[in-house]
Amino acid sequence: MQTIDKKYVDRRISELRRRMRTKGINVSMIWEPDNEYYLSGFRAISYTRPIILLVYSDKTQYILPALEEDHAKLNAHVDEFFIYHEKIQNSHLDFRYNHILDRLLDEMKKGSSIGIEMGFLSAFVHNSLKEKDFKLKDIGADLVEMRAVKDEEEIYWLDQAGKLSDIALETSLANVKTGMSELEFDSYGDRKLLEVSSEKFPDKIVGYDNWTCSGILRSSMPHLYSSTRKFEKNDIVVHSRQVWINGYRAENERTFLIGNPTDEQKKCLQIAIAAQEAGFAAVKPGVKAQDVDVATFRVFEKAGYADYVQHRVGHGLGLSEHEEPYLTFDNELILKEGMVYSIEPGIYIPGVGGFRHSDTVIITKDGCRSITSSPRKIENLIF
Amino acid sequence: MQTIDKKYVDRRISELRRRMRTKGINVSMIWEPDNEYYLSGFRAISYTRPIILLVYSDKTQYILPALEEDHAKLNAHVDEFFIYHEKIQNSHLDFRYNHILDRLLDEMKKGSSIGIEMGFLSAFVHNSLKEKDFKLKDIGADLVEMRAVKDEEEIYWLDQAGKLSDIALETSLANVKTGMSELEFDSYGDRKLLEVSSEKFPDKIVGYDNWTCSGILRSSMPHLYSSTRKFEKNDIVVHSRQVWINGYRAENERTFLIGNPTDEQKKCLQIAIAAQEAGFAAVKPGVKAQDVDVATFRVFEKAGYADYVQHRVGHGLGLSEHEEPYLTFDNELILKEGMVYSIEPGIYIPGVGGFRHSDTVIITKDGCRSITSSPRKIENLIF
Repeated sequence: MQTIDKKYVDRRISELRRRMRTKGINVSMIWEPDNEYYLSGFRAISYTRPIILLVYSDKTQYILPALEEDHAKLNAHVDEFFIYHEKIQNSHLDFRYNHILDRLLDEMKKGSSIGIEMGFLSAFVHNSLKEKDFKLKDIGADLVEMRAVKDEEEIYWLDQAGKLSDIALETSLANVKTGMSELEFDSYGDRKLLEVSSEKFPDKIVGYDNWTCSGILRSSMPHLYSSTRKFEKNDIVVHSRQVWINGYRAENERTFLIGNPTDEQKKCLQIAIAAQEAGFAAVKPGVKAQDVDVATFRVFEKAGYADYVQHRVGHGLGLSEHEEPYLTFDNELILKEGMVYSIEPGIYIPGVGGFRHSDTVIITKDGCRSITSSPRKIENLIF
Repeated sequence: MQTIDKKYVDRRISELRRRMRTKGINVSMIWEPDNEYYLSGFRAISYTRPIILLVYSDKTQYILPALEEDHAKLNAHVDEFFIYHEKIQNSHLDFRYNHILDRLLDEMKKGSSIGIEMGFLSAFVHNSLKEKDFKLKDIGADLVEMRAVKDEEEIYWLDQAGKLSDIALETSLANVKTGMSELEFDSYGDRKLLEVSSEKFPDKIVGYDNWTCSGILRSSMPHLYSSTRKFEKNDIVVHSRQVWINGYRAENERTFLIGNPTDEQKKCLQIAIAAQEAGFAAVKPGVKAQDVDVATFRVFEKAGYADYVQHRVGHGLGLSEHEEPYLTFDNELILKEGMVYSIEPGIYIPGVGGFRHSDTVIITKDGCRSITSSPRKIENLIF
């Protein structure tokens, strides 16, 4: 049942320790679920009971609720487990995560440095650590940097996610008809995805999310949950899908048209496709993140549609739905081989509709390759 | 497209203001997505771009990214909107949420009190507020108290969620066969759910989550994602489902058996059902949360299975997957009419399997009523 080969977890823990030494950090206290998965191979379905990973220079520890004990011991590459309980007959044992945490921290020297995820750790825990006379240093940005460049196992799973997302997206499209709701449209792809992945990948976790915005009003808003609204003749639809397998996510989005699109709708979709192609051409090692965003923006600007751009061209992908660093006009980060991005320039025009394809690309030695490859051309997207 | 009637939002904002006055809080700064929905009627699909709700004594404000502007203006009952942008031609406008937040806070008197969600707000934002010489007071516990007792509109949607979850769960069960994966089993119910809800509730957001644990090893762990593992003859399966509509969630879980369960498996399921019935009988206004947990625990203890209990009997439900306050052995909270709980005592026995039903109950004047009602008896749960 292990999700990540120990070799990769060991490599990540070594790199984190190297960074901790540079910053003078004695222990990193990880709370963010995707960071924990990255560093241990273990993921719970709920974190309302706190789950904390501690990384020292010479050992790693998990603090976990009892109902995750067996699960964690099967999956996590971690040296020690500390369990808290929630039943009356265990009241002589630990039944608060923070009692365990306090005890472990009390073993450390006064004035020790703790690495925390400043953008995630709660104010409540932050306060309680400050009262204890520790130095607190951010380790979150290091984890962003580490996670941004994918290793070969991560790329393997991203490729599988990309292929599965193509199958799902194309199955939904093959079933388009007026009178079906956005959610029913999504579910055709979901069912096929689960059938194929169940056949091909035994004993794995597969998941998906869909955001389908149909009609002029809804497609003009980039980020809506799929609803029970039913497709109508001449609808424009922006369909977004993410698929993940073994933790890794591909994003795959297509704008499509039912019936007879207007000339302006066809023109706008062509422009969005041209902007996306400009994005594919721009993304490579050595360029700045902002260059990719600006390259796509110039396509919209040249066509006279700059006013209708609402968002950056793309976000990082991997374990999280949106991962830093982002492809934004003001991000001077230099891109590297192994980074993974959605390329999804869009325009949203009141009274006309929304226009956006999204594909997921991996940055290669001298450019990028897309792990999603559903048909992009307008002639394949009118139903 | 509005999700919550303005009357209820107004009532909640009034109650929050009453609590703010009592605590001497000048403005509450809300970041937690479900709290924001509760207080405004607006929910985004992603919060990686910060979305902040400010509640003053005389007005409310939203800070939002541009791609949520139209969406929020359709849904949110809020007085003022402040938008940040992310394209190069808008660089003369705001493109950082915190510039807007700083400007709004600068208008407040020095030493003002800000209500924050201590258990949710990030250490990063907490630090930046502390540097500004504000008093910070927790408002999170008040929101927990407010949200715990549901109003009539919330109860309406909870009832719908419960009915939909019954339809979905029973559809999955009607399709059980060996050779299908856990995820495929789930998808039968999903598809039916979307078909029925699309017919009955136009233009609404419907969603679901499933966690299906099949076989002795997997069912012995309470909290696993559904996987591609295929059902085998004589499997025991713990199937969990949550369904939500218009934001409100019902939980519905059944343990079932394929083929020929052993006598011990049948006995254990009977005990889990008896424990759940003890839970239904115990939950009512005026008793303590702990009384419900202990009542179900005693059933397991009496049967000699106390060692196999791993978790509390239930959690609050509503907008979140798990809501405080919890039904734990050490929680002395007095229960009230209008609170909503899962009742889900379980035992997990190595080599035998896991045994847990979960139903969602609303506390009534003198007891409780279940909003989920799929068959609970063992004779209906052997396939």
